[in-house]
Amino acid sequence: MSKIIINFCPTGMIPTKEMTPHVPVSPSEIIEQTHEAYEIGITIAHLHAREKDGVPTYKASIYQEIFEGVRKHCPDLVICGSSSGRNFPEFEKRSELLELQPDMCSLTLSSLNFLKQASVNAPDIIIGLANKMKENGVIPELECFDLGMINFGKYLIQKGIVEGPYYWNLLFGNIAGFQAQLNHVATALQEIPSDHYVSLAGLGKYQLSINSMAISQGLGVRVGLEDNIWWDRAKDQKATNTQLVKRVHELIKLNQKTFMEPKEFGRLGFYNTLKQVEL
Amino acid sequence: MSKIIINFCPTGMIPTKEMTPHVPVSPSEIIEQTHEAYEIGITIAHLHAREKDGVPTYKASIYQEIFEGVRKHCPDLVICGSSSGRNFPEFEKRSELLELQPDMCSLTLSSLNFLKQASVNAPDIIIGLANKMKENGVIPELECFDLGMINFGKYLIQKGIVEGPYYWNLLFGNIAGFQAQLNHVATALQEIPSDHYVSLAGLGKYQLSINSMAISQGLGVRVGLEDNIWWDRAKDQKATNTQLVKRVHELIKLNQKTFMEPKEFGRLGFYNTLKQVEL
Repeated sequence: MSKIIINFCPTGMIPTKEMTPHVPVSPSEIIEQTHEAYEIGITIAHLHAREKDGVPTYKASIYQEIFEGVRKHCPDLVICGSSSGRNFPEFEKRSELLELQPDMCSLTLSSLNFLKQASVNAPDIIIGLANKMKENGVIPELECFDLGMINFGKYLIQKGIVEGPYYWNLLFGNIAGFQAQLNHVATALQEIPSDHYVSLAGLGKYQLSINSMAISQGLGVRVGLEDNIWWDRAKDQKATNTQLVKRVHELIKLNQKTFMEPKEFGRLGFYNTLKQVEL
Repeated sequence: MSKIIINFCPTGMIPTKEMTPHVPVSPSEIIEQTHEAYEIGITIAHLHAREKDGVPTYKASIYQEIFEGVRKHCPDLVICGSSSGRNFPEFEKRSELLELQPDMCSLTLSSLNFLKQASVNAPDIIIGLANKMKENGVIPELECFDLGMINFGKYLIQKGIVEGPYYWNLLFGNIAGFQAQLNHVATALQEIPSDHYVSLAGLGKYQLSINSMAISQGLGVRVGLEDNIWWDRAKDQKATNTQLVKRVHELIKLNQKTFMEPKEFGRLGFYNTLKQVEL
């Protein structure tokens, strides 16, 4: 029986302190909340860095502070950075953090629109990022918002540009992506080879329903304030990262499933291949 | 029983005379091949303009020559232009042809990647194009390469930014889009309200299989050298636009279906709402 991967996404690029006081933005806040989640149980931490004023940043110096703090408190956690080009399109900027050699890094597999903004990931940029990940022993987190991104990911695998092990993050519910409904999820999953690892994310109000559905099927989940800042459907109560992770564990328990420990996931090949993680 | 819409796409932005001598690029070639196809039977002509050297252009002066020639020889044909931003991203350029008030114009509903290139259609550009279409009485051809684009189209409809009648072009087989396989087509079609009009396109080698499947289901087809330059699966023989349109008619006949005359389609509301088409 498959164990449930929990991919923890505490920060992202969108939530601000004005939107929710619970979002961690400084390195120390991110380290602390990741440590808390690690104590409850997470497999991967998908981390974004912010400047002092809370604005998203690509800077390796800030990522380094975060990664070192997380590694210190969570020695076997699989650490994943972000190569998002949403706010900084230049290859040099978005790939700077790869030199830190985290275990994994997000690789968004096409250009796409969000509600108010285009996020441009041209094919040569995607291939450049994949190559630099490989050079640095970083495993790509294959990030898909629609069917075509899965197809492009499979194309990169077929070309040998992306090598295994394979981990996919499928994010449902973006305005211009596949939606958080079963026929879209089913169609997407049919494209993923059965020996690959997959987590499902629901954006905004869809986080809980997608998380819960994924657990019922033995699939991984992505959970955290990056995708959703609310605890309840009525949007009366802001969530904390800790609450969201705890709820996932309650669902796993009720479903009679088991959480995948980071060590187990890392040993499948998801630790940085050039770095020795002390276990 | 639904009649089969034939959306004729003779030129596009990609095929060159080097790739196939049969692609029409000058206004007179485009007019002549569209006239030939009209004599065989097409519902809509989806037209792209080229400079004298064959390079794609946005220029209204060249579109005007094409539209006037086509209108002269094919008085009731539904004429559709292209607002593609693939080579010229600026709103002013890509919307220039709308002032000519064609019946319809393509509206691509998100940013996306092709094999070698990103095609950026940010939300504000899409909304700007939709608004300028409405001001000019132009009906949008809702162009989708993946599920999320359909969702964004439905969002524009819900917001009243796009008004009926509704015509969707679903294009299957782009490297970073939905694929030319039945489960993707079925999932896409589930998203389209039953009173909307739909044509299916298959890119490259998928044109025939998607055209044939669409006809079997009473759905419209998009056919022409824009999407596919080959006659046969083995790629031994280059196709002509005329051959491709004739084959579609043979399939319609064998399927015991009927082709939708342009007049019938236009009268459903697809003629430019500000212009009187003399019938």
